[in-house]
Parts: sequence; C-alpha cells; structure tokens
Amino acid sequence: MQRFQVWAPHARDVRITIDGATHDMRAEDRGWWFCDEVPQAGQRYTFSLFDGTEWTKPLPDPRTRSQPDGVHGPSEVVADDFEWTDHDWAGIHLRDQVIYELHVGTFTPEGTFNAVTDKLEYLAELGVNAIELMPVQPFAGTRNWGYDGVDWFAVQHSYGGPEGLKRLVDAAHAEGIAVILDVVYNHFGPEGNYNPLFGPYTTHGRTGWGDVVNISGPGSDEVRAYILDSVRQWLSEFHVDGLRLDAVHAYDDRRAYSLMEEIRRVADEVADETQVPRTIIGETDQNDPRIVNDESRGGYGLSAQWLDDVHHCVHTLITGERQGYYIDYGTVELLADTLRNAYRFRDTWSEFRARTHGRPLDLSQVAPWRMVTFTTNHDQTGNRAAGDRPSQSLSPEQLALRAATILLSPFTPMLFMGEEFGARTPFPFFVSHTDDELARMTREGRLQEFARQGWNYADVPDPLDPKTFESARLDWEFEKEQVLLHDAYRELLEIRRTRGFNREDLRELQVEHGETWLTMRDAAEGSVTFAANFSDAPVTVPVGGELVYSFTTPKVGAEETVLDPWGFAVLA
Amino acid sequence: MQRFQVWAPHARDVRITIDGATHDMRAEDRGWWFCDEVPQAGQRYTFSLFDGTEWTKPLPDPRTRSQPDGVHGPSEVVADDFEWTDHDWAGIHLRDQVIYELHVGTFTPEGTFNAVTDKLEYLAELGVNAIELMPVQPFAGTRNWGYDGVDWFAVQHSYGGPEGLKRLVDAAHAEGIAVILDVVYNHFGPEGNYNPLFGPYTTHGRTGWGDVVNISGPGSDEVRAYILDSVRQWLSEFHVDGLRLDAVHAYDDRRAYSLMEEIRRVADEVADETQVPRTIIGETDQNDPRIVNDESRGGYGLSAQWLDDVHHCVHTLITGERQGYYIDYGTVELLADTLRNAYRFRDTWSEFRARTHGRPLDLSQVAPWRMVTFTTNHDQTGNRAAGDRPSQSLSPEQLALRAATILLSPFTPMLFMGEEFGARTPFPFFVSHTDDELARMTREGRLQEFARQGWNYADVPDPLDPKTFESARLDWEFEKEQVLLHDAYRELLEIRRTRGFNREDLRELQVEHGETWLTMRDAAEGSVTFAANFSDAPVTVPVGGELVYSFTTPKVGAEETVLDPWGFAVLA
Repeated sequence: MQRFQVWAPHARDVRITIDGATHDMRAEDRGWWFCDEVPQAGQRYTFSLFDGTEWTKPLPDPRTRSQPDGVHGPSEVVADDFEWTDHDWAGIHLRDQVIYELHVGTFTPEGTFNAVTDKLEYLAELGVNAIELMPVQPFAGTRNWGYDGVDWFAVQHSYGGPEGLKRLVDAAHAEGIAVILDVVYNHFGPEGNYNPLFGPYTTHGRTGWGDVVNISGPGSDEVRAYILDSVRQWLSEFHVDGLRLDAVHAYDDRRAYSLMEEIRRVADEVADETQVPRTIIGETDQNDPRIVNDESRGGYGLSAQWLDDVHHCVHTLITGERQGYYIDYGTVELLADTLRNAYRFRDTWSEFRARTHGRPLDLSQVAPWRMVTFTTNHDQTGNRAAGDRPSQSLSPEQLALRAATILLSPFTPMLFMGEEFGARTPFPFFVSHTDDELARMTREGRLQEFARQGWNYADVPDPLDPKTFESARLDWEFEKEQVLLHDAYRELLEIRRTRGFNREDLRELQVEHGETWLTMRDAAEGSVTFAANFSDAPVTVPVGGELVYSFTTPKVGAEETVLDPWGFAVLA
Repeated sequence: MQRFQVWAPHARDVRITIDGATHDMRAEDRGWWFCDEVPQAGQRYTFSLFDGTEWTKPLPDPRTRSQPDGVHGPSEVVADDFEWTDHDWAGIHLRDQVIYELHVGTFTPEGTFNAVTDKLEYLAELGVNAIELMPVQPFAGTRNWGYDGVDWFAVQHSYGGPEGLKRLVDAAHAEGIAVILDVVYNHFGPEGNYNPLFGPYTTHGRTGWGDVVNISGPGSDEVRAYILDSVRQWLSEFHVDGLRLDAVHAYDDRRAYSLMEEIRRVADEVADETQVPRTIIGETDQNDPRIVNDESRGGYGLSAQWLDDVHHCVHTLITGERQGYYIDYGTVELLADTLRNAYRFRDTWSEFRARTHGRPLDLSQVAPWRMVTFTTNHDQTGNRAAGDRPSQSLSPEQLALRAATILLSPFTPMLFMGEEFGARTPFPFFVSHTDDELARMTREGRLQEFARQGWNYADVPDPLDPKTFESARLDWEFEKEQVLLHDAYRELLEIRRTRGFNREDLRELQVEHGETWLTMRDAAEGSVTFAANFSDAPVTVPVGGELVYSFTTPKVGAEETVLDPWGFAVLA
C-alpha cells in the first residue's frame, strides 16, 4: 500500500483515523479520497464518512487486507513482502491436477492455515496435487463455510490472516501442490459489509445469500476493479494458482464484456508474467458452453467449470435417492450419456426445472479436463438437512465404486476433505453471525426450509450452535475400514496418473452399458478398461483380460468379467 | 384452428363456452386441455378455469386470434384462409430497404389498416420500400402506442383486425413494399393480460411497463412456444417480411439458447420455405455485438439491430441538447467516430451510464446495413415531455441536414411517419386504459417523471385525454415548406438508391471532419462525396467537384466547397 486511499463517491467528506490520530482526506478524481500519511505495517485505521448531515462511525476499509479484530473492527496495514521460497515452482496444468477441497476451519483440530500445512505431505502421498480452499475472506465470528465473506482483499484472521495464507501457499508449492482459492463475487456476506456506505457496491436486488454485487450498473467500473484487483492480489502477490468462482450464474452480468472474461484476462496476464499456469474455474449448473468456450466463439473462456451432472448420476445410482434435482438422474444410461457428452442437458427436458435445459458442448473444442467432477463436495454434503456424508450411510464397496468412477473418468476429479477415508463426521451448515437478528433469521430460515421437506426440527443441526461446527471437524484417527478405503483412493489415483484415459478429447472415450453395468475405455491401443456394477446383484460384463485393480474380488475371464455387487474392476 | 385447445397447467378443471353453449374440456399432456367441438369461423368463445375452489369468470383465449369486443371480451374463431395476390412477391433484402415507421392509429384520419393501404403509393413514390408498423396486438380501448399489447396472436380490432392486416400486407407487396411488425415479447400490457391465470406466463419481476415474460423459468418451454408460434404466424400465415423486437435487453433470457436465436431460426425456416427473405431486427442500446454476431461466434444472429448512436450524434449537434443520454454525444468527432465504427461505445466510458459501455463490432463480419438508423423515431419523439418532433423547432435546412446524414449513410435508414414533410404534429404518449386505477397511475407516473425534470404539469399532455391522441394524427395538407422538404427526402433516397455508399463493408467508408464539418465518401472509384456543416456559420470543406444535390446553395470549387449554415452538399 503506497498511501491511504479509499473510493467513497457517496461521501461529502472523508476522514481517516490512523492509530488514534484523525486526518482529513482529499478528494481527487471520480470519488477517490487520499491522505498523504505514509502507511506502515501494523497501523490500525478506520474511515469516517460525512453525508452532508452526519458522520458515520469509524468504518473498516473496503480494501482492507487484514481485520485482526474481526469484520467490524479497524483495518490493519499489512506489508506485501514475504520470504517466498517457491522460486522453482512451475505450477501444474489443470489437466494433470487432482484437486482436494477443504475447509480450513474444520480440516484439522486447530482450524488454521498452519495446521493445513502439516497435512500437505499426507495429501501428496495420497496423490493429490492441488488443494482448493473454501473461501477464506473475513466473516463474522470464527465459524463459517466462507460464503458470508466481506473484505475481499483480506484473509480471515482466525485462520492465520494474510501471512498465514502465504505460508500455506509457499509450503504447498514446496510439496508439489497447487493452491486454488474459492472466491465469492456474486454477493457480499450479510454481516460486516460496510461497502455500500462508501459507494454503489451493490444493487437493489438480493440473492438468497446477500446483496447482489453491482457489476453492471452505474459505478460498476470501480466495483469490477475491486474484484479484478483482488483477483490479481491472490494470483500475483499470494502466488495462488487458481480461483474457483462461486455461483457464476448469480452474477448480475449484463455488460458487453462479462466479468468472467475480465477475470480470465487478469489470470492470463499473471500467468504470462510468471510463467506459472493460472486456472479460473466457474461453479455453474447451467450446462451452457459459453462458460468454457473461448472469446472467438463468444464464450467467457474460463479454464474449467464444475460439472455436477456426473455426481448426480453416480449418487442417484448408488443411493437410490430421487428428491429435488436428483429426479433428472438415476439410470446407468444417463451416466453413460453424461460420460460421453459431459453435459447431461443439451436442449433436454429437465423435470426438476420444468423446462428444457442446456446446450451441447463442442467436444472438438473443449477437452474433458475442463470439467471438474467429484463424488461429493461441500454443497452436496452440507446442503442436506443433517449434512451427512455418503460415507455415513454407504458401504465401503459403494464408496469405492463412487470414487473409482470419478477418479478414472477423463474429467478433472475433486475430492472433498475426508472422503478418501470415508470420514464419518458430517459437514453441516454452520455460521457464527454476531448480529442477533441475522442469526435468528438464518436459523429459522434453515429449519423452515427443511421442515417443508418433511424434516423434524430436532434432526436439523442448528447452524449457530458451536457443536454443529465442532461436529464437522475431521477425525483423523482411522479405523481399519477407513484405511482400506484410503488405500483404494491412492491406488485409483496412481492408475489415473500412470494409465488414465485420454483427457484431451472426450470423443476418445468408449462407454458401453447395460441396465446395471457400465464400461469405459479409450480408443488408444492397450488402454485399461473400467467396468462397474451399479447394483446389489452380481453382473457379468462383456469385457475381460487381466485384473489391474479392484476393491472386491471379480472373476475375470478372457472375454467377460463377473463383478460383485457394487463392484468394479480395472482391466488390462 | 383444428380444434379448441388451451394450455392451462394451473387449472384443476377447464370449461369452454362456445356461442353460449358450455362444454367440459379434457386434460391431456403437460397442462393442455382439449374440446372436440369443431371450430367454425365467427364463433365466440371463452374459457373458465377451476382452481379446486372456484371458477373464474369467462376468459379470452391466450392464443386468441381476434377480440372483436376488446381485450376483456370473448375470443372469436378466425379462419386462416385469405385470397392472397402476392404470389410474385420476392421480398426485399434488408440491405436495400428504406423503412418507414408508422403508427396505424394516427398515420391517417381513419386510423385503420385500410387507410394505410391508401398511402402506399405515396410511400413508394417517396422511395420507401418497407413499412414498420408499431405494435398492432390488442390493447385496452382504441388509443395506444401498442406497447401495452396482450393476446399476441391477435390484431387490434379497431385497426381492422387480422383480415385488415392481411389486406394491408397483400396491398403493400403489390406496391413493392415489405411489411415489418414491431412485436413486444419482453412484457405483457398492464390491462387485459389474463394469461397468468392459465399458466406461468410471467415471472415475479416487473419492468417499468408490465409483468416480465417467463422465458427462462419453470414452464418457459410453453411460453417460448407461445412466442415462437406467434412469430411463425406473422411471418408465414400473414406474409409479414420482418419483425422488430422491442427492447431485447429487457428479455429475462438466461437459458443456454436465447429466445432471439430461436426467433431467428423460425424466420430462417419460413424464408427457406417461401424463398422470401425475413428480417429480425432487435431494439437495443447495449452496443453488444452478440446481438448481430452469428451463432458460430456465440451471437444471437439477428438480421439487424437499432443503432441509436447516429441519431444521438446528429440530434445533439443540430439541437444543442445535452439532457439525459445526450450528454455522451455532441461533437462532430463523435459523429465521425460513430459513422466509422457503428457503435459509439466500444469499452468506452459513458457519463450517462456512469460506467464503461459496449464492445467493438467486428466490421469484417457485420455489414453496416445490419444497423438501423433514423433521424427520429416514435421513442425519440414521444418520450419527450410534450412529444414534440424535431420539425416543430428546427429550420428546414436543419431538417434536411439531419435527413441527408442519415439517408446517405451506409446504415439502413428508417423514417418516422411524417418526418419527410416536417410534420408539425407532435407524437406524445397516449393510452386509453379502461381500468381507472391503471389510468390514474399512468397519468401521474408520467407527470411526476417530467416534473422531476423541471416541467410544469400543464405542459405535459395528459396521456389519457383523447385530445392528446388526436394531436398526434398526421396533417396531410402540406404547406409550401413541407413540399420542399418532401422533395429533398425523395432526392436523397434516389441518390441513396443509385449512387449510395457501400453497405457491405463499413471499412469502405472514408470519413473526415473538422470541428463543425464532416465529409463521407467511400473507397470506390467515382464515389459521390457527402459534405455537411453542423454549425450556424458558413464553413469551407476540403472537397470539391460537381454538385449533385444540395438543399441550400453551396459554392462548389474544384478542391473545396463553401457550405451554408446547416448546409450540406452531395458532390461528384
């Protein structure tokens, strides 16, 4: 930070208080205010705004980089220097990544970046080479999934603040692991968002999560700059390898240049400057090729997008669940179709949406590694009433079958923390709002939502209760069954790495199926074959050869294989 | 109509009353209800819907083709046969069109399609070869611009109904004139829209004009079909040559296939079937190439779009006005820039919008005839407090200069009815809502809007007052000055037709300018040169030659020309 400055176009006058001393600020162009004091690391400061009638209370800086006393407290000047040791880090192309999504607060007993660092070696040995941190921007209190973040240049203090994040990134790179940050640019968190007092950061609209961000209306240039500068900060100053953009369909994006294109351009610039690849991944369920198509074809050109469809296909087949959006899934035929085409909906009727949905992806242009898939993730787990994981109700065989289907597919796999050992801890929704009214509304909103679905209040964890948060902490003491599953994950990731299917062209994948079974192989000579049984009865599949790996004990012949219930086989 | 049918997914039971006799309807797939009575032309019918508790009053058919007693009355069965005489009609490519926008109700003393027919010869002699009818879908009462329409398959009865529209199209084709309909698919009119009782035709959102149309949410397939079937009806059964889509930026269009693409596809199909070109023109001020880019480049591929920018440039230069969006215009340099690039904003700061706006058009792909320009239109006139036309305050020289700049440009010109003779009648906003509360709100809303801009209530015509409507009727008794202007329009259109600039590639246009003057020519050998003076002082411009046409008396030399105040010259 070269000098103290703030964008406050709404204000008639602005003052800054630095370590107790108040200074007038000077208005310059287009709503920016300046103060000539030289910022020094460790200084605490706040702004006060005058609207012509009265002064606000002291407010944190919208571009604060540190909030040591929380989202309502003063901002802290943080230096941008750091003793980086990752000079040799060349990055990892997304095509070759195995991502591991984790929530810093519950991944370890300590709930800090430092404690994550202690697990990096474990992750590397598992076969993971990228971690995706659920959002780490400041939120009220110390317990939050992260999607209630404000202060988009800062890092949650209780996790370790900006210095802690840099240490984690540096250590990850030393371990050969890339770091992806999940960033929320579609709404501001409901508590501690003082930005609207400064300028038009939000629109009149609201998502279910908070105020909609003004990226298209009057004043949106500065709001886009707020976002794009934060993107650059993470990728450049913090050496972060990629961003996962939360819910891009909720962007109020109506300008001729989309925010996604602009984010991607910043990422491309940083990649060019540093010669380390940078990845921008969009969360979307729109089955809209525009997200990943390149600019020449009118697309936003993101590196990749989340693809829920594979999860939904596998989840419905293994659990038999059909509630909500699962109604559009549930047959092996649909799984085969999705593996062949990536998008489940390609101008296809969706019963859940009660309308036609999606558009075909041009498979000649979009490689399958640009689709991120998973056996579960924070949402697929935590959006359930009790936040229960698949591993709390499925058998080890079923868990291994889920994993094998995802990990061997040509798409980019993402694990959710703990799934690799079948964690029995749930991942329920939790918050620690300090605003009583907001806390009450959040609790009641969630209870009512699930009550409508037929749940008893008593079975839905109270998101405000610290016990709910505590229940989500991973238990790292593995039982024997968990060790076996963990070994399966490691084996499968090894097979993916050494003998995996072609990830450059989905049309190379050959998928066959019956009512309960499915096989995948690719067109290359000597490709392995994956055969899976999505039923509780043995099934004979028309592929054979030599067994490379299985979690059960299939009978492998020359031309056919008998798979156990919920069994799979990797054949050569 | 093969049989009586209606989409009423909300209803538990549906009855139809045909000429006084009530019949039960039979539910079939996806919310459609049927009755086996054979429809016969002239029958009046209504539907009643049962929601499980009570029956609605008798309602008109959402797909009604005729409402002889107005939007609240019964529907009428109308045959689709007609004695067409336009078998030899081959259509006119938009590149070659000169469009004339007219409002059926005020274009003639009678205010009917038949009376428009009587003016076709006049229009053809003027040089017009396409008429664009402001919307003709039914509205409450007899006085309305048309943007409050409901019943999107029907035609306003007081204009002459569906039969009258067909006669007009047939007669226009006989006169060598194409017909474009202005259609409103972004909102339903505020009175007489019974569709939401039948099904999810609207969303919870509202534009300033009425309920937002549900083209993206649950049930939107049938709403899109409602729109697309009406598009086909106009283009196919009614032989209409093109559609102008009102305010496409207000479409709530969030599906992977845009409604615009789907409309264009229907138009392409009808063009293929009939070998008559069909044009889809979008109204937009977004300076977003996606509107006209083709599908391979991620665009919606409309034939053309309205381009307000040229109007705003010319209007500000000649009137000196700078209020509202005119603040972003007003120099000859900007006019030259807009003539060269079509879009005024190409990732360019807009003071009016308080943000950066637009994106460059790829001039190698998008021909200038795909931009529709005008010296004024219904909005640029009628959205003024008093609805005053330029011709009520500008000199004949200024009017001729406006016209020459627009009519000679490579863009497709559109005249607004009466401008060719400098009509002194205003075109104020008028409505004839029969709902008292709606009428009151419309009147007060308009008065308050202009009061905020500093107008006295007394100077803003009451939109409900029949006198306001009457004041808008064109007066066809030309005064001498009006005859001279009319002659100028005819001359300019003749020059456009015979010696006009290249309309296929805007990069062929050569534009030079000084502070008050501008010249246009194209790269072709022997091109005419257009020179214009946008000031009230004579100016010498660095082009000469032989005078082809002027409205004033320029002094034309070999290398330079002296233009009169507000004068122009066409030179060879």
